[in-house]
Amino acid sequence: MACSSKEKFKLPDRYGNTGNSVWNEFTQLAIEYKPVHLAQGFPDFPAPQHVTKTLMEVANEDALLHQYTRGYGHPRLVNALSELYSNLIGRKIDAFSEILITCGAYEALFNCIEGHTKPGDEYIVIEPFFDSYEPTVRAAGGKTVYLPLRPKPNTSDWKGPTTSADWVLDPDELASKFNSKTKAIIVNSPLNPIGKVFTIDELTTIAHLCKKWNALCISDEVYEWITYKPSKHVRMASLPGMWERTITIGTAGKTFGVTGWKVGWAYGPANLMENLRTVHQNCVSSCNTPLQEAVARCLELEMTRMDSAKCIFKQNAAIYEPKRDFLVEALTQIGMKPIIPEGGYFIVADWSALENSVDLSKEPDQYKDYRFAKYLTKNAGLLGIPTSAFYSEPNKPLASTLIRFCFVKEEETLQKAAKILQDWRAQK
Amino acid sequence: MACSSKEKFKLPDRYGNTGNSVWNEFTQLAIEYKPVHLAQGFPDFPAPQHVTKTLMEVANEDALLHQYTRGYGHPRLVNALSELYSNLIGRKIDAFSEILITCGAYEALFNCIEGHTKPGDEYIVIEPFFDSYEPTVRAAGGKTVYLPLRPKPNTSDWKGPTTSADWVLDPDELASKFNSKTKAIIVNSPLNPIGKVFTIDELTTIAHLCKKWNALCISDEVYEWITYKPSKHVRMASLPGMWERTITIGTAGKTFGVTGWKVGWAYGPANLMENLRTVHQNCVSSCNTPLQEAVARCLELEMTRMDSAKCIFKQNAAIYEPKRDFLVEALTQIGMKPIIPEGGYFIVADWSALENSVDLSKEPDQYKDYRFAKYLTKNAGLLGIPTSAFYSEPNKPLASTLIRFCFVKEEETLQKAAKILQDWRAQK
Repeated sequence: MACSSKEKFKLPDRYGNTGNSVWNEFTQLAIEYKPVHLAQGFPDFPAPQHVTKTLMEVANEDALLHQYTRGYGHPRLVNALSELYSNLIGRKIDAFSEILITCGAYEALFNCIEGHTKPGDEYIVIEPFFDSYEPTVRAAGGKTVYLPLRPKPNTSDWKGPTTSADWVLDPDELASKFNSKTKAIIVNSPLNPIGKVFTIDELTTIAHLCKKWNALCISDEVYEWITYKPSKHVRMASLPGMWERTITIGTAGKTFGVTGWKVGWAYGPANLMENLRTVHQNCVSSCNTPLQEAVARCLELEMTRMDSAKCIFKQNAAIYEPKRDFLVEALTQIGMKPIIPEGGYFIVADWSALENSVDLSKEPDQYKDYRFAKYLTKNAGLLGIPTSAFYSEPNKPLASTLIRFCFVKEEETLQKAAKILQDWRAQK
Repeated sequence: MACSSKEKFKLPDRYGNTGNSVWNEFTQLAIEYKPVHLAQGFPDFPAPQHVTKTLMEVANEDALLHQYTRGYGHPRLVNALSELYSNLIGRKIDAFSEILITCGAYEALFNCIEGHTKPGDEYIVIEPFFDSYEPTVRAAGGKTVYLPLRPKPNTSDWKGPTTSADWVLDPDELASKFNSKTKAIIVNSPLNPIGKVFTIDELTTIAHLCKKWNALCISDEVYEWITYKPSKHVRMASLPGMWERTITIGTAGKTFGVTGWKVGWAYGPANLMENLRTVHQNCVSSCNTPLQEAVARCLELEMTRMDSAKCIFKQNAAIYEPKRDFLVEALTQIGMKPIIPEGGYFIVADWSALENSVDLSKEPDQYKDYRFAKYLTKNAGLLGIPTSAFYSEPNKPLASTLIRFCFVKEEETLQKAAKILQDWRAQK
């Protein structure tokens, strides 16, 4: 035998040393300490009733809705998405060659990176970033190049609550990251975790560089329908000259408040989508039929009431905004400095003003924000996620005093969280 | 710019020239000619009512059943599978480290191959084989080594209907395929497309070689509950010394007659499963919650009635067997020579006795069985799949006069198919 079992069956090098993810680590902490859980991004209140009712109806109907459907996407769903996005992007999107249905936006992102990466390709990633980008690029043989958002100079002394709009890219720094090896830039707007909604000017700057360097834009728009006034979501693919180089990723999970349905999609020009289709065919082949059918029906309903306040594309933000404001207030009251998000599910808050009143010495973690998040879980009973988890190794210090909380929770959960923070602060 | 857009954005080499799959080609043919469709493997009759009702109940219940669940598998489902397979394999299988839930058995297979392949690793594949094995191994950087089942010498002159048990591996040929580069052998029992159920002796021969060469066995057992008497499914992981080197793949789709649910799984020792978990985390992260919960409840029910004739683990074969026998009879009557399957959804039939009465010259395909399958679709209105699609290039001639039909169809569909064959034959 050529080598030991341990050697022979170990992970291929391209998966590197993935180590323990922040999610596994903090999920374990949650099990152990049972804190109020503002870590993971999903609503803990019921999904809209008409959404869950639609799934019940599908389950009860046509026998064939329980059998395999078209591998690249259930026909009724790709047709619905074609209608929706054709109107939003301002061009006809072909349901059968320009849209792919995936097992959540996560698989769409995987297909995109795995299907487009040749050895040495570079992906520009804006920090903070959704933490799956890095291992996916690495496993595909590519390289990530990081570029942090930075607080505008006049806001860096933290005079009061700032908003995610105050976090910006330096245009020169951005331009310096592009070169002939750049395969793509990944743009997540609204951005998890900080909630930034990129303006049309910011997107235009990025678009200009993509065109100049013949690079793709992977536009992760999973929070497309969750923006708070006056912010407005702009779709990269709708900018001049960008359709032909943009792959846009979306999901029903965030839009319909059902993250557990895992129905996502990607759309873009057929030649770029071909790469994603091949990988999809290789890794899952097709997605489940009942949830695709249910999402299709839900989208069809929303398209009949796009201008109504009842339309879920508007209703989500209306429901979530008071929750956001409640948590911003609670964090501010105890001395944290929340960055008010323009979109998405999360608030990132700076806790440096509290640093002198906490003893982090018992936590052995390398990064201070990990120590604080663990301290808060164990000593106050509130779970958030250390924000350096969303940064590359060299840039983790930029997040050393930041913590992320999810605010799309029951009013009761948020009130508990506020009380925990007040009581804990009072003891200090 | 370093190269043209076409060059820059083309598929990475590891995905090679995948070309048009047999499924795309024949799905297109089905759309065009509207034949009676015995090609794809799924029931066209309603799934058991208690199964679809369970999904309705889940959709209507707890809010959290619509949100993200544990990435490596919904706790209730991994617990149910642990209970089921611990009893069947005869050892305690840990729900949380030894079982992974996937988006269908397809993703389990992908995770397995992608997570275990280093450049140059060899996978032994028994022919005919489920056609996804090859591109998955190639994309992961491995190499497939083929080994065809061959009709036993005394059955090769086709005296009458034979069974899939008459198709066997040559032990010397099998042994000759193993070497120090062998990472794994993929064993699909019951085997799609031919329906062979490997005997304990045959599996023991394979197991011996796996142990000798320190190779894995990827045991694709998606048809585990669909075997016809007197055949009996033997689980590779239950053989002496095989648990520690076997990854077993299963699915709810076949067992509960709901191929569109796409709830699959893999189980095996934690050290081997770790590789699959890493890939799963990278490509889909988690599977949908409602269907996992529904499958868990369905499994729990079946485990209360394992010895009853009502248990779905027994009922499937009881329902499918008369369908199999009906189609075997219909094929035999018109002069084809069906290989009676011991398990699974499909019948492979030899049509060489009809060769003189068909004019295949109008079909341009390279392989005769493709020409015949297309001829039958266009001229008789019956769709089957050419069996050489399940062979490697050099061995495709072994299937030049074989066609595959799916028999888990409504009685009405099967009667239509029989009538089509009779009418067509009468014209010759």
